[in-house]
Amino acid sequence: MAKKIIEPAWRESAPVEKSYRSIFKWGAPEGFKHPNHKLFEEIKIQFNLDDSHFASEKTNGDEIVSFKKPVKLKKEQIARLEKIAGKENIQIDEYNRLKYSTGKTVEEAINLRSGKISTVSDIVIHPISEAVISEVVKYCNTQKIPVYVYGGGSSVNFGLKASKGGVTLVMNTHMNKVLELNELNHTVTVQAGIMGPDLENALNNAREKFNAKNAYTCGHFPQSFEYSSAGGWIVTLGSGQGSSYYGDAYDLVLSQKYITPAGTFTTLAYPGTATGPKVNDIMKGNEGTFGVLVELTLKIFKHMPENRERFGFIFPTFQDAINAGREISQAEFGMPAVFRISDEEETHIGLKLYGIDGSILDKAMQLRGFKPMQRCLFLGSSEGEKNFTKNVKKQVKKICKKHGGMYITGFPTKMWEPGRYKDPYLREDLHDYGILIDTLETGVCWDNLHKVHTEVRKFIKARPETICMTHSSHFYSQGTNLYFIFIMKDGGVKDYVKFQEGVIDAICKSGGSLSHHHGVGKMIAPWMEEHLGKEQMNILRTIKKHLDPNNIMNPGGQLGLDSDTKKWRDVK
Amino acid sequence: MAKKIIEPAWRESAPVEKSYRSIFKWGAPEGFKHPNHKLFEEIKIQFNLDDSHFASEKTNGDEIVSFKKPVKLKKEQIARLEKIAGKENIQIDEYNRLKYSTGKTVEEAINLRSGKISTVSDIVIHPISEAVISEVVKYCNTQKIPVYVYGGGSSVNFGLKASKGGVTLVMNTHMNKVLELNELNHTVTVQAGIMGPDLENALNNAREKFNAKNAYTCGHFPQSFEYSSAGGWIVTLGSGQGSSYYGDAYDLVLSQKYITPAGTFTTLAYPGTATGPKVNDIMKGNEGTFGVLVELTLKIFKHMPENRERFGFIFPTFQDAINAGREISQAEFGMPAVFRISDEEETHIGLKLYGIDGSILDKAMQLRGFKPMQRCLFLGSSEGEKNFTKNVKKQVKKICKKHGGMYITGFPTKMWEPGRYKDPYLREDLHDYGILIDTLETGVCWDNLHKVHTEVRKFIKARPETICMTHSSHFYSQGTNLYFIFIMKDGGVKDYVKFQEGVIDAICKSGGSLSHHHGVGKMIAPWMEEHLGKEQMNILRTIKKHLDPNNIMNPGGQLGLDSDTKKWRDVK
Repeated sequence: MAKKIIEPAWRESAPVEKSYRSIFKWGAPEGFKHPNHKLFEEIKIQFNLDDSHFASEKTNGDEIVSFKKPVKLKKEQIARLEKIAGKENIQIDEYNRLKYSTGKTVEEAINLRSGKISTVSDIVIHPISEAVISEVVKYCNTQKIPVYVYGGGSSVNFGLKASKGGVTLVMNTHMNKVLELNELNHTVTVQAGIMGPDLENALNNAREKFNAKNAYTCGHFPQSFEYSSAGGWIVTLGSGQGSSYYGDAYDLVLSQKYITPAGTFTTLAYPGTATGPKVNDIMKGNEGTFGVLVELTLKIFKHMPENRERFGFIFPTFQDAINAGREISQAEFGMPAVFRISDEEETHIGLKLYGIDGSILDKAMQLRGFKPMQRCLFLGSSEGEKNFTKNVKKQVKKICKKHGGMYITGFPTKMWEPGRYKDPYLREDLHDYGILIDTLETGVCWDNLHKVHTEVRKFIKARPETICMTHSSHFYSQGTNLYFIFIMKDGGVKDYVKFQEGVIDAICKSGGSLSHHHGVGKMIAPWMEEHLGKEQMNILRTIKKHLDPNNIMNPGGQLGLDSDTKKWRDVK
Repeated sequence: MAKKIIEPAWRESAPVEKSYRSIFKWGAPEGFKHPNHKLFEEIKIQFNLDDSHFASEKTNGDEIVSFKKPVKLKKEQIARLEKIAGKENIQIDEYNRLKYSTGKTVEEAINLRSGKISTVSDIVIHPISEAVISEVVKYCNTQKIPVYVYGGGSSVNFGLKASKGGVTLVMNTHMNKVLELNELNHTVTVQAGIMGPDLENALNNAREKFNAKNAYTCGHFPQSFEYSSAGGWIVTLGSGQGSSYYGDAYDLVLSQKYITPAGTFTTLAYPGTATGPKVNDIMKGNEGTFGVLVELTLKIFKHMPENRERFGFIFPTFQDAINAGREISQAEFGMPAVFRISDEEETHIGLKLYGIDGSILDKAMQLRGFKPMQRCLFLGSSEGEKNFTKNVKKQVKKICKKHGGMYITGFPTKMWEPGRYKDPYLREDLHDYGILIDTLETGVCWDNLHKVHTEVRKFIKARPETICMTHSSHFYSQGTNLYFIFIMKDGGVKDYVKFQEGVIDAICKSGGSLSHHHGVGKMIAPWMEEHLGKEQMNILRTIKKHLDPNNIMNPGGQLGLDSDTKKWRDVK
């Protein structure tokens, strides 16, 4: 008799309206990704759990949001803001104040699952125009009311946390239009609150929507794509999953318009200019501390999915795969778009997740000597002009072969693609049963990659029953990133925060960048001064002080710019 | 009887030692490029001159430098600087004070040819170490002594002009070493004063010099290559002739070390990082106003000249050629390295200069209907991996054909290459006989290119007997540059400056960037505030004030940052 497969009752319905869960749940309310059976079995083994553990949810956040944090703004201030923004565009109810002050950190999820809340903004404004934003910023500046900006809501470092109360400006409600598609310049001008899918959809359908000659793509596909805004990409310095080819968000912006307490300006829109330090670049990555990004002109690219070439390899070791990745990045035939190398442990889990574990392919790999927990997966695709993408694939194959990689077709990439935005949805399922998934990531030069990988992993794996999967997914001629995913039992916020701070310490000590593309927020900010050095932090603080002399823009430790920068967590 | 060809007695010997000419002459003292016969004949026609005009030089600057500008520093200040830098590394003689305060503007040449000098620094220091520079900056800051930095000396906008006297630090004398070649990271770390050829030579010969596995190139070849420094490239935002492929100087720097009055720091050396606004980028283009760039880590590229593919085309019109250039820049098969499109008039002169005018090729072109003063030359080459460069050439040919271009082989590029640094040497020959060559340039998006081209040309051509040659030579997906070369009779500084200001006005009014890669200096600075807007200028001024509170770094109007910013010229 075949053994009965027991699966937990993974959630299949959208969160209860106005519940805590509806706030912390990643992605679309009706979007789910359940651990497949192989992964579920692996988790039980790794965490020493049996099926009975999964009989009922541990916490779930199904309760309706309710807290007693008074609105600290004065009545006349609220009245004035209502007058500026329109009463219909303002929310002061508990649910929305919490919703728009909350990002997607694991701590927030742990706390909200138990109905514990932290600081929230006093009033939520959905501005309908730049004029409204300008008036709000002006008024808040005179009144010294803090202003927080909410783009798509996917911050994983408390970038949205309204540490000082005040106003949260929600950009994606109304400030979400495509303003101009300029085919000649290969640019699109948008309001900052436009969400990834809306932008990409408009560009893909440019022929129909704008009577354009070609279809286009924005080239920026972060894992948070579905719930992030174009403005958010720029102010937090995101990277998309095709960044090795298209560039990081930083590279994609020709011009930005900002409303700051010190005034409103649009940076110069030239592809090249030698007119002193580039204000367009000075503003990138300010994480809402310099002002409100209201409009941006982005580069666009021809949409040519028909030219995409996929490839996958298995390597004997991580070192071999990275050596191939480096040689590809320095070989000057152009870069792959998707370009991912998983370390031993991620490969082990990934092969289960993508349904390769135990397949004929797996057997072929094992026969050829690619051993579990040593072998490493390399997958990717090339985009661009047809001959270009073919040549990228050809050269990638040649280099991978040289470094001991076995070609395993484009199948792994094909398997990976549909889940590219969905993998994080796993976290709610697992958290329902007391298991956490979180990530931290770093940028490295080639000559320091293995040191950072080894030392950070050493710290993470020193914690009992902890899975640590690592990949490199953004490649440059000079280096790449390391993206650490850790899975562990939920031991409460205090326990988790201590662990997380240890990981950040390990990244810093081993010489990695504090963040490759998640940004800094209020979470990693306490490490900023040591990382950049006092002289460089003071340059950032100088610009901050000039543009925002009353420290109303995202105050409370964001980016390490003000005196509220400290290690803190909501509930200790 | 064949008509006797009469040529002027073009100079063939290095300038007299310590003469004015030895200061203003472009490039190597023993380097010359004479107008060829066709060009000489063309110039006589255009300027309505006969051979008798070329019987003797009008001005030549052969006189020995002599002026009576007292050193304004106090004796004890000089003594202290001598103690810091070493007496042997200091010059206070007239010749060197003038030499190191002088760049390569046409005004400086006009004036120095008549022995007219402007402000000069009081003392020239050739620092031997960062420690010396640090001490000099500290001391000058306490004493409020201005500090100017001289890299390679090729400024064309009074970037080196010591408007306020003080100290000039010459970087290329001792601060010119390669510190580290990092093959793994594909980087080279150098002292800022290293000159282009020394850097490139070290990289090309990395196997012998550094026991490296590969040969490398820096990928940056501005026309001033022979007499510009790596540090200068970055602080003035230069672009090389292969920038369409390799990137502008801005793109080539991973990290920089600065000594400023507010402290010394090295920017983070990561290929990707999301830790707030990038100080590495904030410092680029500061033109010596924020501090002294002492060390930099540059990206390098594999040196593979064997893969270079050359191509050339003739187009019916400038519009056709630009349309092809735009389509190439947006087609996503990679970019050509050299990528140049000459307008009608530049093509006309260029065909003479490169010896194509009157050749069989010329006849073939004319037969096919490519008419003089309408037809436009397009030339280029691709670099990188072998299949990549072949595909770039193949796709370029396909697109050019589509836009009416006729393939004229790689011959024009081959003819252009040897003169790539030599063309500016022409200016001394012509100026000896009262004819000026100068240039101004701008960055444009595609949708404004023809407006800028037409309007700036209209202004230039409104001046009687003025040649105006224009090309685009740095291409991006979003646009290109326009490089205006004008040739005219020398009517004195006052006349010239009025004309030059008119050209800058025309660039501004038509919507071009103030400069694409020459930088701003003190010459174009008066237009900066209008160009960037007050809000953005104030951001730059804020950073300046923070890093250099006493305004000792390149004071006197550089970049428009201080109150000395004004339209001025040496002699009116």
